[in-house]
Amino acid sequence: SVFCSWAAFHPSNLIANMGTETSRRLIHGAKVGFALVVVSLLYMLEVVHDKLGDNAMWAVMTVVVVFEFSSGATISKGVNRAIGTTLGGGLGCSVALLAQQVGGTGKAITIGTSVFFISAAATYTRLQPKIKKRYDYGFLIFILTFNLVAVSGVRGEEIWRVATDRLSSIMMGITICYFISLFVLPVWASDELHKSIVSKFDKLANSIEGCMEDYFKSDGKKDTKASSNLGGCMSVIYSKTADEALANFAIWEPWHGRFGYGYPYKKCLRILELLRELAASTLSLQSCLKSKLQPSLLSTRAAETCQMISEMLVFMLRELGEDIFNMRMCRPHDTVAVRIQSLKTELATAVSASNLSTLVGVNSTMRDGLSVASFVFVFMEVLD
Amino acid sequence: SVFCSWAAFHPSNLIANMGTETSRRLIHGAKVGFALVVVSLLYMLEVVHDKLGDNAMWAVMTVVVVFEFSSGATISKGVNRAIGTTLGGGLGCSVALLAQQVGGTGKAITIGTSVFFISAAATYTRLQPKIKKRYDYGFLIFILTFNLVAVSGVRGEEIWRVATDRLSSIMMGITICYFISLFVLPVWASDELHKSIVSKFDKLANSIEGCMEDYFKSDGKKDTKASSNLGGCMSVIYSKTADEALANFAIWEPWHGRFGYGYPYKKCLRILELLRELAASTLSLQSCLKSKLQPSLLSTRAAETCQMISEMLVFMLRELGEDIFNMRMCRPHDTVAVRIQSLKTELATAVSASNLSTLVGVNSTMRDGLSVASFVFVFMEVLD
Repeated sequence: SVFCSWAAFHPSNLIANMGTETSRRLIHGAKVGFALVVVSLLYMLEVVHDKLGDNAMWAVMTVVVVFEFSSGATISKGVNRAIGTTLGGGLGCSVALLAQQVGGTGKAITIGTSVFFISAAATYTRLQPKIKKRYDYGFLIFILTFNLVAVSGVRGEEIWRVATDRLSSIMMGITICYFISLFVLPVWASDELHKSIVSKFDKLANSIEGCMEDYFKSDGKKDTKASSNLGGCMSVIYSKTADEALANFAIWEPWHGRFGYGYPYKKCLRILELLRELAASTLSLQSCLKSKLQPSLLSTRAAETCQMISEMLVFMLRELGEDIFNMRMCRPHDTVAVRIQSLKTELATAVSASNLSTLVGVNSTMRDGLSVASFVFVFMEVLD
Repeated sequence: SVFCSWAAFHPSNLIANMGTETSRRLIHGAKVGFALVVVSLLYMLEVVHDKLGDNAMWAVMTVVVVFEFSSGATISKGVNRAIGTTLGGGLGCSVALLAQQVGGTGKAITIGTSVFFISAAATYTRLQPKIKKRYDYGFLIFILTFNLVAVSGVRGEEIWRVATDRLSSIMMGITICYFISLFVLPVWASDELHKSIVSKFDKLANSIEGCMEDYFKSDGKKDTKASSNLGGCMSVIYSKTADEALANFAIWEPWHGRFGYGYPYKKCLRILELLRELAASTLSLQSCLKSKLQPSLLSTRAAETCQMISEMLVFMLRELGEDIFNMRMCRPHDTVAVRIQSLKTELATAVSASNLSTLVGVNSTMRDGLSVASFVFVFMEVLD
């Protein structure tokens, strides 16, 4: 597998595998390596070292810590770091200068007290869920910088010069990260989120299809495929945290590719929520179908309508996924929705005398499917 | 709310609210502040500063970065940091010494090349899902230390002394973190996980109960409560990531309280998995009940049996949650299981002629409930 990894560096393979996960990770590794070489060169240059001294070390540290897999995450960390450093450094300088004016034993007491209260307050704020979600790193850096600056103030060195040198060194690091992350084979969190939404449409379509097939066709080998359908639905539900993190990073990304300035991340989150609901009702459908009720209990007419509805739903999901993938204006799904509606009423009359149990599940799936459809329709209209 | 926050510091309130989230966060903030004051004092002491110089700054940095909310997370980060620093520093020293032997222009080239390849390889490894889950921070620190040491090797300072001074400074920081995190009002990740499991049993019991009540009693205001039941189930399913992180930290925790040396984290994960499955089938049950089928279609006998089964399931879930909470040996649930089994067969005969749809959902819930019960039984036997 080491061989495989290195083979991926060959240009032809590199292009062929561009989409695969391994090559993307290798490319990310190379980007980080490149950024670190650039920042090391800066450190080695006499002119930079003469000006910044050992503070140039902070540029190296910044590159290692800020450079993330997606551009959005890198930008978010960079902004957090810059703001955290500035505020923490400013406050630290003030405390140090105050302590120097107090002098004597009061100096250590002033610094100790302010270190305790400011760090405790910042740590408490950092733990609030809303803050933690977006500004966790900024608060960490604030506490770090504040302490370093305040504590080194005890020795009465030229704090102000040290602080500004470090800040400019950190800014250099952030600039290098931004440049490489945005212009060298960038990985956009918004594209990832887009792909993830499209793949979810596909997964759900597959699992609805698979579960209807299981139900109506083979009775012998039911259990093997059912679990894989279940897995697809569960993975859609479980990916909540990962998708929300992606959306969080996507907010930070500047204009690129086919998206306008305002990346519709709120709409993406709403679509993902609807998809999760649809996944939950597909799960219900599956567990209803897995039960003892046999399809032979259904009248042929009901079974046929049922299959037609599910086929149409699967088709619609795939089509929606494709439309979102191509960023196309949605085709008029109104007509499809109307047709499903009429089939539903037909089904209801067909089975009113027969056994209703599966249709319960099917109905709820339909309902959610329709809500997704109508919502996505709105979404596409706004987007294009 | 600022007033409320400060009121929580009053001893009597502190004890009363010990369990609430806000006071725990305030305590954590105070612990971090205390650790930082201790480490600042070390920096201020002449004897330490004379020996370590400005490298004492690394102790401050370590405390800020390593001190986490739970003891397990702190230990895990400390170990990662210590190992990452040692390996990265060792490799960095080797590269720097090698570069000094090469000398001339070759020096910069040697360092640049090794920085590129080692950083790229480490970054690639870091992105592997298994590594990322547990050793992400260790790899970050490895890359950071390696680069700092290797790059400062260009200037030909006494790298070895700098490296060892920093290492001992970092070790001092880790020691302070460990001491405060383990001995001052510790928050154990294993206790959190334990509590989270117990609360999940309760949530599921409530939502099964709520959904049966909705179904059998009031027909007028169905929708209001149903959504809250749904929310309980969804939160059980969504908490997967958070619980897995807790289990990951719990592994690192030493013996404490009522747990033996081997915290049964694998069993906890298995129970959580079963609980998620149960939540998924409760969701199915709910969507089946939400559908158009009215309880009036059920024969009275079937309805009664149905209610009895759900009551028993709810009772059993609550009892299991309590047993796990008290770390007690499980009461003989075999008998309960047998009784549910007999009720199930009775139910099957009672409704074979009537409408079956709800029971499908109920049955699958029962099945999962029983598997949870039997599993937890095994778990308790092993534990006590």
